[in-house]
Amino acid sequence: MLWIPIDRSLDIPLYRQVYQQIRENILNGDLQSGERLPSTREFSSELAVSRNVILEAYDQLLAEGFLDSRRGSGTFVAKGAFLKQHENPSTFHSLNSIEENINEDNIINFRSGIPALDLFPRKTWSKLSHSICNEIAPSNFGYDLPEGRLELRQALSRYLLRTRGVDCHPEQIVITSGATQALTLVSKLLLSPNDAALIEDPITDDIQSIFKASGSSLYPIPVDEYGMRTALLPEDKNPKFIFITPSHQFPIGGTLPIQRRIHLINYARKNNCYLVEDDYDSEFRYEGPPVSSLQGLDPAYVLYIGSFSKILSPALRIGYLILPMHLIEKCRKLKWFSDLHTPSLDQLTLARFMTEGYLERHIAKMKKFYKNQRDFLIHCLNTTFSNDIHILGYSTGLHLIAELKDIHFSKELLKKIELYDVKVYPVEDHSIIKGKHSNRIILGYGHLSKEDIATGVFRLHQALYNTNST
Amino acid sequence: MLWIPIDRSLDIPLYRQVYQQIRENILNGDLQSGERLPSTREFSSELAVSRNVILEAYDQLLAEGFLDSRRGSGTFVAKGAFLKQHENPSTFHSLNSIEENINEDNIINFRSGIPALDLFPRKTWSKLSHSICNEIAPSNFGYDLPEGRLELRQALSRYLLRTRGVDCHPEQIVITSGATQALTLVSKLLLSPNDAALIEDPITDDIQSIFKASGSSLYPIPVDEYGMRTALLPEDKNPKFIFITPSHQFPIGGTLPIQRRIHLINYARKNNCYLVEDDYDSEFRYEGPPVSSLQGLDPAYVLYIGSFSKILSPALRIGYLILPMHLIEKCRKLKWFSDLHTPSLDQLTLARFMTEGYLERHIAKMKKFYKNQRDFLIHCLNTTFSNDIHILGYSTGLHLIAELKDIHFSKELLKKIELYDVKVYPVEDHSIIKGKHSNRIILGYGHLSKEDIATGVFRLHQALYNTNST
Repeated sequence: MLWIPIDRSLDIPLYRQVYQQIRENILNGDLQSGERLPSTREFSSELAVSRNVILEAYDQLLAEGFLDSRRGSGTFVAKGAFLKQHENPSTFHSLNSIEENINEDNIINFRSGIPALDLFPRKTWSKLSHSICNEIAPSNFGYDLPEGRLELRQALSRYLLRTRGVDCHPEQIVITSGATQALTLVSKLLLSPNDAALIEDPITDDIQSIFKASGSSLYPIPVDEYGMRTALLPEDKNPKFIFITPSHQFPIGGTLPIQRRIHLINYARKNNCYLVEDDYDSEFRYEGPPVSSLQGLDPAYVLYIGSFSKILSPALRIGYLILPMHLIEKCRKLKWFSDLHTPSLDQLTLARFMTEGYLERHIAKMKKFYKNQRDFLIHCLNTTFSNDIHILGYSTGLHLIAELKDIHFSKELLKKIELYDVKVYPVEDHSIIKGKHSNRIILGYGHLSKEDIATGVFRLHQALYNTNST
Repeated sequence: MLWIPIDRSLDIPLYRQVYQQIRENILNGDLQSGERLPSTREFSSELAVSRNVILEAYDQLLAEGFLDSRRGSGTFVAKGAFLKQHENPSTFHSLNSIEENINEDNIINFRSGIPALDLFPRKTWSKLSHSICNEIAPSNFGYDLPEGRLELRQALSRYLLRTRGVDCHPEQIVITSGATQALTLVSKLLLSPNDAALIEDPITDDIQSIFKASGSSLYPIPVDEYGMRTALLPEDKNPKFIFITPSHQFPIGGTLPIQRRIHLINYARKNNCYLVEDDYDSEFRYEGPPVSSLQGLDPAYVLYIGSFSKILSPALRIGYLILPMHLIEKCRKLKWFSDLHTPSLDQLTLARFMTEGYLERHIAKMKKFYKNQRDFLIHCLNTTFSNDIHILGYSTGLHLIAELKDIHFSKELLKKIELYDVKVYPVEDHSIIKGKHSNRIILGYGHLSKEDIATGVFRLHQALYNTNST
């Protein structure tokens, strides 16, 4: 008789335990082709389970072809169901996360680009998403268009014209799963192997990786406190596009002046290339009204990227890409083959959040909040470091740059700083041509409490100037 | 004095109207570098608006660099802000949708793969998503891990072991934005230019496009009513993987027997290639218990793809990819560069939907519903076509195959059928090697009412045999 250990303490149904073990025995050859299995009656009494348990197990094994049933003569192991076993090297080692944990105990982390997560408007959002889910027509639960919901594209087109001077028809918009996907689509849309693109230097590694994935070459254009130095645009590279973050250059923080914007447009027209405008952090401008987009200057040459990660929440994964009309069809196809479309209910919730005026109210509120944070950080820095610090890139966004006199943020120094339970990010990490920003660090402040900001600045000062304590 | 038409009936703030028109005048050269603008006091009285309107407009133009302000002497047009204008060829023609509209008036559409959208459990879903949004810690609104929420991966790992015999640790799962993204990740993960992969024939165009995007060659293996004919696997192709839909081959509908599954595993071991198992439609098996996965036979060689599109809703865009451990790190990176991660709140809602038992109850309910639909469709077909029809691929899923005696589903015939307000899909559309399935059509039934099914079958019969009416 087949020996099948039954464990009633397990969360696995009894028939499944019987099924799995017979299956295992067949696959490893313990039960061989042609062998007769016990009748359901004898087997159930042997295992002290109900006959149904055995019947169900046999049925499944029959359906899967492990067993043959011959009327009148019983149940047999089928032919060809033996599979040589090998050692399964399933070592479940813990993975290094790409994302680092920003909630490490006690460490104050000045990481940039994280909004104040505790101020996400969860009551309004959950109320709207609840209504949407209950009110929409059933067809909305089906497959949708790759470019996204018309409701959201219409709301966006109105919002962007009003607040950013972006000149686009809803048909020029493709809703993406965040700005990262928009960048990936741009890369696939415009770059082929051996193509060239011009980028800002410094810039994030992620953006370089995304553009390089197409096999193209990237040429860095240096950035100063006003953004890309357009006077240095090369005439011999024949780039497919220039990538820029004109509202708040990442990381240096400059806002591109109109003269450089016009230079870019003229360069694009002359060299027949596109401008890829990542309108990073544009909503949170604390000095003066927001600067209008590059896209508004010449929609025919600009691909415009935006995201709701900073103004609402990165967890939503909603962004958008605005394109000249002749690129739309290709982009829709690329989006379709990426993930068909961005989740519909989230898009509809966001569209209602916008049309009912919640977004602009939320942005206004957050702008006040972040300005306050920024002013406090600047105050702490100036008080603590006085003449040793120069602050730049602070007019916009959720981070600023601190330049420290006679400090070189080497790997050793950064390690030392971490020993003081504070984490800062050197600009040099984002530099392509190294050595120009070695005394600069990026300080993100959107997600920190005032207490954390004060303590963090204090700890940083200790780490830099208190040579005795380590 | 500058002439600025102000239109109080517009939805655009007055300062914005002033701002936009001055900006336009500067860009097109009507206002030239060095020109002095009227003072805010005179200009506001001229335009009959409050002085604040002009102040705000000037402030923005100053911030953007269009204007210069010289203390004591006034406000001037800045240098270098002129941009040659060109005709903007913005022709907003209507786009052809990639997705076709399945709700065309009056047409009964037997398209496959669409679940019964009106039975989406919207009350439960909206209730859970509302609670999630209000209860979770603020950190959940931030950036998340590329592989997806641990809660969902744990729930999936338990669910798949219990229902599909899939043997995986939560760390082997990457949550994707639908099965399409999982396929795209597989393609990037395993295929380089000039690599080979083996696929089923017939197969969908989308899957071929996704795999071909990597520059690799696809070799079709013919499919019969039991799925891929593994005896025809070539020994000389050195494929990176074999793609299969073993639960319910799309489109033919066969379920792969254990002998062929073992053949595939042995082939993979011998040729050191992977098996990519798209466990398409596995949940809705009407005859006998569900057949266990290929993945469960040898987790080291199988990449397993699943999705919630059919069992819940395609609009959610949630799927998953299960990989051998050594491929996980590369896959996480690819997911990160695609869209960082799948939206967190949706993942958390789904995890709770699963752990609270709603998913399995919903599937059980839908299985009963679809079986009823299927039985009714088979009944209608048999009654209407009697001896002229052979039905196959009906044991599982949301579609079946109808094979019609002496009928060749040519383009002309399909057009004629559409004139009868019914739409069917020829298997030949999915064939790589043409001519083998010309008398077969795919009939999807999940989304249709019984009345539509009956009428649709009647119309199809009319179209095929009533030669007088057109």
